[in-house]
Amino acid sequence: MRIVVALGGNALGENLDEQMTAAKVAAVSVADLIEDGHEVILVHGNGPQVGMIETAFETAAKADHHFPVLPMSVCVALTQGYIGYDLQNVLRRELAMRGIEKEVCAVITQVMVDPKDPAFENPSKPIGGYMSEEEASKLRAGGEAVGEDSGRGWRRMVASPLPVDVVESKTVKALVEKGQVPIACGGGGIPVVWRDGQFHGVSAVVDKDRAAALLAEILDATMLVILTTVSKVSINFGKPDERQVDGLTTEEARKYMAEGQFGKGSMQPKIEAAIQFCDSGPGRKTLIAKLTEAHDALLGKTGTRIC
Amino acid sequence: MRIVVALGGNALGENLDEQMTAAKVAAVSVADLIEDGHEVILVHGNGPQVGMIETAFETAAKADHHFPVLPMSVCVALTQGYIGYDLQNVLRRELAMRGIEKEVCAVITQVMVDPKDPAFENPSKPIGGYMSEEEASKLRAGGEAVGEDSGRGWRRMVASPLPVDVVESKTVKALVEKGQVPIACGGGGIPVVWRDGQFHGVSAVVDKDRAAALLAEILDATMLVILTTVSKVSINFGKPDERQVDGLTTEEARKYMAEGQFGKGSMQPKIEAAIQFCDSGPGRKTLIAKLTEAHDALLGKTGTRIC
Repeated sequence: MRIVVALGGNALGENLDEQMTAAKVAAVSVADLIEDGHEVILVHGNGPQVGMIETAFETAAKADHHFPVLPMSVCVALTQGYIGYDLQNVLRRELAMRGIEKEVCAVITQVMVDPKDPAFENPSKPIGGYMSEEEASKLRAGGEAVGEDSGRGWRRMVASPLPVDVVESKTVKALVEKGQVPIACGGGGIPVVWRDGQFHGVSAVVDKDRAAALLAEILDATMLVILTTVSKVSINFGKPDERQVDGLTTEEARKYMAEGQFGKGSMQPKIEAAIQFCDSGPGRKTLIAKLTEAHDALLGKTGTRIC
Repeated sequence: MRIVVALGGNALGENLDEQMTAAKVAAVSVADLIEDGHEVILVHGNGPQVGMIETAFETAAKADHHFPVLPMSVCVALTQGYIGYDLQNVLRRELAMRGIEKEVCAVITQVMVDPKDPAFENPSKPIGGYMSEEEASKLRAGGEAVGEDSGRGWRRMVASPLPVDVVESKTVKALVEKGQVPIACGGGGIPVVWRDGQFHGVSAVVDKDRAAALLAEILDATMLVILTTVSKVSINFGKPDERQVDGLTTEEARKYMAEGQFGKGSMQPKIEAAIQFCDSGPGRKTLIAKLTEAHDALLGKTGTRIC
């Protein structure tokens, strides 16, 4: 099977050391799938890493007003280099330890979004550190969106539009077809819009599960595997009658979503990605499982299957 | 012809805007070679960009002592994401404007060095901003090399060892064979050593021209093109009897190098890279030319040819 695996950014830890440790755990899980003979394409998040880079550049800009403000698109590009390097290293090692010689390589990936996506009218995803109202005004004058975050101070705000195309998908495809393991669409991909005959970076963050679903669709994958911190999707989460589900049809998933069953910033985008991929073609399935349980989930022993 | 093109980091400008402008100039030059039907692999430097990222992280570490110190290897990985994103974008656009549909994609590349390389005994390449002696001591305690830079203050120092292998060369090869234009070994590649069955990042900067020469050798390229700020290599540079040369044998190049004809931090590494590549196999040539004159240089109208 051709499988696109999406790894959560939070699952990769909060700093350099944590990232390396977490990446090793992820590598074991992904290597299990490769050892079983599947073609794997890896997508990763970048939440904590974007925060670290944003903080560094914001601090430098405070100390020196000539220091460049980092556009969100460049920030994502930086994290693709940084996380990709760690992931390709640990996965290559994990495969080598199992006697599997396979090339693993991160490719810098842009994801096209629609400039008319309604998400741009309401940039609501806070990123980076807190700042004064004065600093916020300066950023706003530079064309960046800022907003008050729950009364705790001003932060940069970005839109989270839907992915429309993966610009470098043919590169990813070429590598899969050569038996290699590409790492792509890191952090949801570098968000770009098409204007005047070229791509331009935009102040946005594409949800990495949605980007993974689109990549899976373009690459004609059989399965999208979303690895996260929980073993299964829950209904009535945190309530006395909470129950974990083994499987959902897209119809059931839509119904539960309409009921507000899934956390807006956590499980809901995963369910939306699952529906998007499953609806894109016959026989396509999504598996939501715990980071350490990918292999068992694929065997049907755990995880939640959406089809 | 299969050609590895090396672009200078300084040729890419000092900040975000300059980089984008410079990248467009480079794209025209590289697109000329692709339009002529050559297979091109692009390698770029990262000097100014490493400086910018180093400064941001150093400033953040001064403001918050818990902020992570950025290893040099991670710093190079970050620049590969950032410069690769710009380059692949502008080159793709330049090709599209000429009616050439070609995939252009940066791959995160590690370059293996020898931990016993004598360069590690004398890290002499200063990077990043200046710091106090106290800050320097702290960094030294963390295993980083620091040194006094010409009486102007303390800076981080890194070794510049020779590249021994390009870890992701098979990925680069797969893409070239598919007719794509890979961007690889950015900033000379992420410097790693092989220890205990895996690659570990080291505090070093591999010269990007040397990395390009090695990549050209591994990929069995016919030509290495080093694009820089001057049209030709000069003998007696800056003296009344200065003369530009059209061609050099590796023997002549060695002789002039022994005479100290070439600037240590500028032309000499390019000449060394040229010799390395030309000596690696029959028929292999190196061309040193101005960034904007690649096409004319390939036609023999300008540039310095080493063979």
